[in-house]
Amino acid sequence: MMNKYTVGDYLLTRLNEIGIGHLFGVPGDYNLQFLDHVIDNPDVVWVGCANELNAAYAADGYARCRGAAALLTTFGVGELSAINGVAGSYAEYLPVVHIVGAPSQTSQNNAELLHHTLGDGDFGHFIRMQQEISVASSVLTPTNAAAEIDRVLVEALTRRRPVYLLLATNVAESLLSPPSSPLPLRLHCDQEQLAAFVDAAQSLLASANSVALLADFLADRAAQRQRLQRWLTEVPMPFATLLMGKSVLPEMLYGFAGTYAGASSADSTRDVIESSDVLISVGVKYTDTITAGFTQRIARSQNIDVGLHASSVAGQNFEQIPMADALKALHQLAQQYGQGWQQGIVAPPVSVEQPSDALTQNTFWHAIQDFLRPGDIVLADQGTAAFGTAVLRLPQDVRLLIQPLWGSIGYTLPAAFGAQTARPQQRVVLIIGDGSAQLTVQELGSMLRDGQKPVIFLLNNDGYTVERAIHGAQQRYNDIAHWDWTRLPQTLDVGSDAQSWRVTHTAQLREIMQRLEHREQLSLVEVVLPRLDVPPLLASVSRALHQRNGS
Amino acid sequence: MMNKYTVGDYLLTRLNEIGIGHLFGVPGDYNLQFLDHVIDNPDVVWVGCANELNAAYAADGYARCRGAAALLTTFGVGELSAINGVAGSYAEYLPVVHIVGAPSQTSQNNAELLHHTLGDGDFGHFIRMQQEISVASSVLTPTNAAAEIDRVLVEALTRRRPVYLLLATNVAESLLSPPSSPLPLRLHCDQEQLAAFVDAAQSLLASANSVALLADFLADRAAQRQRLQRWLTEVPMPFATLLMGKSVLPEMLYGFAGTYAGASSADSTRDVIESSDVLISVGVKYTDTITAGFTQRIARSQNIDVGLHASSVAGQNFEQIPMADALKALHQLAQQYGQGWQQGIVAPPVSVEQPSDALTQNTFWHAIQDFLRPGDIVLADQGTAAFGTAVLRLPQDVRLLIQPLWGSIGYTLPAAFGAQTARPQQRVVLIIGDGSAQLTVQELGSMLRDGQKPVIFLLNNDGYTVERAIHGAQQRYNDIAHWDWTRLPQTLDVGSDAQSWRVTHTAQLREIMQRLEHREQLSLVEVVLPRLDVPPLLASVSRALHQRNGS
Repeated sequence: MMNKYTVGDYLLTRLNEIGIGHLFGVPGDYNLQFLDHVIDNPDVVWVGCANELNAAYAADGYARCRGAAALLTTFGVGELSAINGVAGSYAEYLPVVHIVGAPSQTSQNNAELLHHTLGDGDFGHFIRMQQEISVASSVLTPTNAAAEIDRVLVEALTRRRPVYLLLATNVAESLLSPPSSPLPLRLHCDQEQLAAFVDAAQSLLASANSVALLADFLADRAAQRQRLQRWLTEVPMPFATLLMGKSVLPEMLYGFAGTYAGASSADSTRDVIESSDVLISVGVKYTDTITAGFTQRIARSQNIDVGLHASSVAGQNFEQIPMADALKALHQLAQQYGQGWQQGIVAPPVSVEQPSDALTQNTFWHAIQDFLRPGDIVLADQGTAAFGTAVLRLPQDVRLLIQPLWGSIGYTLPAAFGAQTARPQQRVVLIIGDGSAQLTVQELGSMLRDGQKPVIFLLNNDGYTVERAIHGAQQRYNDIAHWDWTRLPQTLDVGSDAQSWRVTHTAQLREIMQRLEHREQLSLVEVVLPRLDVPPLLASVSRALHQRNGS
Repeated sequence: MMNKYTVGDYLLTRLNEIGIGHLFGVPGDYNLQFLDHVIDNPDVVWVGCANELNAAYAADGYARCRGAAALLTTFGVGELSAINGVAGSYAEYLPVVHIVGAPSQTSQNNAELLHHTLGDGDFGHFIRMQQEISVASSVLTPTNAAAEIDRVLVEALTRRRPVYLLLATNVAESLLSPPSSPLPLRLHCDQEQLAAFVDAAQSLLASANSVALLADFLADRAAQRQRLQRWLTEVPMPFATLLMGKSVLPEMLYGFAGTYAGASSADSTRDVIESSDVLISVGVKYTDTITAGFTQRIARSQNIDVGLHASSVAGQNFEQIPMADALKALHQLAQQYGQGWQQGIVAPPVSVEQPSDALTQNTFWHAIQDFLRPGDIVLADQGTAAFGTAVLRLPQDVRLLIQPLWGSIGYTLPAAFGAQTARPQQRVVLIIGDGSAQLTVQELGSMLRDGQKPVIFLLNNDGYTVERAIHGAQQRYNDIAHWDWTRLPQTLDVGSDAQSWRVTHTAQLREIMQRLEHREQLSLVEVVLPRLDVPPLLASVSRALHQRNGS
């Protein structure tokens, strides 16, 4: 059996073709036969996770570092445990291939009362739920498998969002021929639309004295980091990102104007983004938490907006233009007209350190600024951590993973496991709160099992401080159980050589950070912070959210 | 504001009316205002959980002990994390009221790009997903709230399944009058149908020499434990349960014939259930794992089958008869015709102890048999643990919580937290495998935070042994990270007085069990078992499942 080439093997061949070298998930008795083929596959490595939600988060983190990821769960119980993680990948545009092992076609056709079903003989409940958060899905059969796997994977890669494949036990085992041609992944570009877009952009840029660039997360999803970096290196001009897309632009480069957050921006950042003659925005979505409640002021008439598959100039839309083609054209226009654009460059806002013996959000983030190295992968959970990164000026080639739109707390710990799996040679730095870490802590065991060496800063501010900032600062519902964080590594890994520290003073933290430069094991630093201390951006954003929640 | 009576207060009043004294969940910024009212409510206590899936499991365990439960999550991220737990409550008939805090109606009507949404302005994605696993749902408004809350709660209580309430921040705060009349919860009974059912049952029972009773989980969901116990005490006759309903009948009573599992039953159990002149089955669902793959042999012509809301006699259906009314009638017929039924009584199967110095599944379950006390609440996770309970003869008033249909591993640890919250005076005994415990371990911290004192037997058989039994006994995908289980209580509770032991020998285990008789703190016993050792029922069931998975 194992020597024959099956539908399962075909799927693994295609996953490897699109750059996926690992499969995250949890075994279940409807996916074990497929797993035998995964174990035997030389190109796709099985990565077992402690639970399915964590596996989905890990796949998301992997996709942010490798462009795509795959997730394997079992029917019903497994796929539903993972669904919140996949929904996050849908909201934030990560192509995650969710493969679900299902009962045999015979059992499904007989509407049997199987375990992991609702006991009503309806095997369609879960795919209907999954379709709300997938751009394509398919119930594979021995006859449609090749065509459907190809169709669904192309949808995932071109639209940058999750897809769903239901793989019954007998289908996974049925024989198939290997693919004969590569997947058709090239995006169609409408040349007429592109030409019209360039004309419109040119007429706007030719007469502009000041031009600024604002990029967000979709520029990363379309793999445009390098293009934008070349552009900004050749044509100095003021540029900023929104928090969601932070790290997509080279923040050490001349022209960096800070992190734009509408009314919560630094004055200089806001001025350069909102008052330039022309704003070129790339892959931007103005969502509530990154705009302090939709306080951005972008004049449509002066905006060239580049989206994933369409762009607009002063409100005029141009369809079927992949972002890469639009940016290539704009890059050329910048070379042509951008000589004077550097005059608009402002100095990036500087966060002032308020020296304090006791640790504060302020002294912590200044220490992090000094700790980060080029090439680090930084994950900051959607609490005080994510908002705190707004004040950072990231070193060259640092990749920041945050989730401000979906905002599922606990996401970053398993995502860090996935990111380190995707990029074993880079240093992963995880910054997460105590409340968040409790949701997904078991994946620390997987990090240790696999010998990963991330640096984890556990911000212990005694509960859900981000919620306290929004509402109920002293309410019992924002309290959590008190854990002894420094015991975790030895508890989740017998005989671990991981090390932990608990720091309450700034000097202590900086001293530990120096030691970490030379450590070769997983390190966990419990950073004790004041209960109600929040980063400046969170303070203003939470005021806005508090009002919007009508109280 | 807090002194005014709001929609949120109305909901809490109704929850308390249906016997719900606790609300499980995780705070999120769309449910914080409602939580203020929960904190101020004298009758419904807030129980924060480490994550939403665990909160849903805890609510399910609470509902199994108290008849109903309530769960609070936040929009999108929270409700989807919980959805697998609620799906289990749907599959296994537990009325769990899932309340989801949502963005204000204004934000929804404006289709704003809010955090915790998919960023497409569609606020209907998640309720559509939830409707697959709810018997009723509602988007509450200031005007429909009273009527809709009542309608949805009545559906949950009468149909014994989860319901879904979407509570926008502004709706929760809008004013409302308290309920003026109690909820109409009485089930309608069609008297003509009941009379016809009784006639048909009578004609079958009058001529029967041997009659046996088989009960399953729905008899528990319809609160018929006491009725059945009185019946079997007054009219001795052979009776058995399926594994899913184990503990619904008094196993210490004369007439207990063991646990029926189709071809995997003990011969005497199978004979009395399949060969009596008449079989009265109550609240039975023949699902795969509890029947060793549908090997039950029940002759329709000799079967009186009592369902939740309908019953049948020899295949003839009678609609709109609540189980309570049908059982009351059958109880009377038993008193009338049952004098001779005790002649069919067989001795329950006895599990033989194979003495072993090293711990085995066999010696473990014999030790558990001696350890259990009347009134214990026992939870066994869907691995070797749940199948192992089949050989137990449960003491008086023991309640067993298992999940053989939905079968979501890790369920029982948070469910034990919920059960102990529901029944603080009873001893909770949790039996769970190492693989399962890793999925949901953080709720141990909530148990310790709340001063709970369950006894936890952690079966460490080095991985997913239940999966090994089905497929891939030696495959890497059935391995898990190695944790130091005995460190957990002190790690998840600073300064905990909880105690842990690791036992590798039968004598050790029994000696610890004696000490536990007098302990007043949470106790965790890591029970080291052979990697491939499985209880007898699991061995035969897994053979059946392995075949059905087509390999």
